[in-house]
Amino acid sequence: MNLEGFPDLPAFPPGEVWLAGAGPGDPRLLTVLALHAVSRADDIVHDALVDSRVLRLARQDAVLLPVGKRGGRPSPKQDEINALLVERARAGRRVLRLKGGDPFVFGRGWDEVTALSEAKLRFRIIPGLTAGLAGTALAGIPATSRDTNHAVVLAAGHRAEGQSTADWEALGRLGQPLILYMPMAQLEEIVAALQRGGLPGDTPAALVQSATTEDERVVESRLDALAEDAERHGIGSPCIAVIGAIATLRRRALASMVGWS
Amino acid sequence: MNLEGFPDLPAFPPGEVWLAGAGPGDPRLLTVLALHAVSRADDIVHDALVDSRVLRLARQDAVLLPVGKRGGRPSPKQDEINALLVERARAGRRVLRLKGGDPFVFGRGWDEVTALSEAKLRFRIIPGLTAGLAGTALAGIPATSRDTNHAVVLAAGHRAEGQSTADWEALGRLGQPLILYMPMAQLEEIVAALQRGGLPGDTPAALVQSATTEDERVVESRLDALAEDAERHGIGSPCIAVIGAIATLRRRALASMVGWS
Repeated sequence: MNLEGFPDLPAFPPGEVWLAGAGPGDPRLLTVLALHAVSRADDIVHDALVDSRVLRLARQDAVLLPVGKRGGRPSPKQDEINALLVERARAGRRVLRLKGGDPFVFGRGWDEVTALSEAKLRFRIIPGLTAGLAGTALAGIPATSRDTNHAVVLAAGHRAEGQSTADWEALGRLGQPLILYMPMAQLEEIVAALQRGGLPGDTPAALVQSATTEDERVVESRLDALAEDAERHGIGSPCIAVIGAIATLRRRALASMVGWS
Repeated sequence: MNLEGFPDLPAFPPGEVWLAGAGPGDPRLLTVLALHAVSRADDIVHDALVDSRVLRLARQDAVLLPVGKRGGRPSPKQDEINALLVERARAGRRVLRLKGGDPFVFGRGWDEVTALSEAKLRFRIIPGLTAGLAGTALAGIPATSRDTNHAVVLAAGHRAEGQSTADWEALGRLGQPLILYMPMAQLEEIVAALQRGGLPGDTPAALVQSATTEDERVVESRLDALAEDAERHGIGSPCIAVIGAIATLRRRALASMVGWS
């Protein structure tokens, strides 16, 4: 590979925190900067969505610090994660905070940026491919196409403890394609509100579970059958729901599309 | 770097077309698959937004085929680009279609997917980091933060010949943060429609020009001053406009954030 002219990959200074997105799963979808960060970090504070194939790229002596929900145990609270990042950086470690997808698309990355800023610690960010755009495209569903939409809405389907939620009726009125992150726990409620807002029950829809991993599964459906189809096909988290005309574009493309697995 | 367990980077078979996103500009934000594709292609059909530092990574004997607007000359029509991809693949070339950002977020990538499918040519896709999410985050503006928004709208600000446009009044009514791609040519019209829809004139807003390149410039403003501030600061394309509370998150973060340049 001709890397002449390729910008330098900077050293990872002790005491810095790098916040990086690991993308939807397949390690080949890491950015060059993220791959560099994984291979240099002393400590990797990662959530449960980061693919094990990515974590295997860490240094043999790197410390892996999982902070996601695992095996039914609740995940640490955001404040505890922030405190962990600050503590490790102050101890002079090269700290990589690694999240599935993109940390700044429903990933709470900005909570951590704020905490690091307040602690006056130096940090850098490395955006990642977000599952709602990249995982869906690789499953044959583009976020936009010229004939279907000039706008697309990304919305958090998951309601965190004590949090409010998107205004689903208003989004139903808007009529633009929706890409929902982690909608499974609230799916029936969301679908009902979108329909109250005016989105027709026969609006095309699809579910993409675990995009770009060996657990990937895609179900094509329609709005008013989405919850039932999810249950029938045993679709679970992590999952993206796509609602709108873009969900119909898949079949024609897949005939010629070659996958990466 | 410990690449044990890293999935194989597949050979680029002659006669295939790989559609890849080059991200916002900085080559270190290429995915590993995109970097691999650039280094293996026989022909690279690229638009004007692909950074020259990325194109320099091509093989010395690769043929670069620019199809973007350059020096005031109009760009080839989409049909001509589709035909070029088909012709080159049928001639047995390894064809990389490389676009700035992500080909499937207002990038017309799906037009090309459809053309390749209809021609029964094998193709693969490699999503890229889209400027509206990654370029903005690197400029200090996250697409979402827990305290500001549960949804974000990506919308095409540019109206192609003969095309309709997003329903700006409806988006103004929605009140969620908006990220507009290539809004400069229509900026006053869009702002007026958002305000007619009910979005207050003092809604925070920002412009990010040429994110992650040496031409990057960021202007913080508010909705009703956006067009004037753009002109005063000489902001031009390519540009992303961010409208909503997320545009205010920047200043605090930047104190501790370290850039990649």
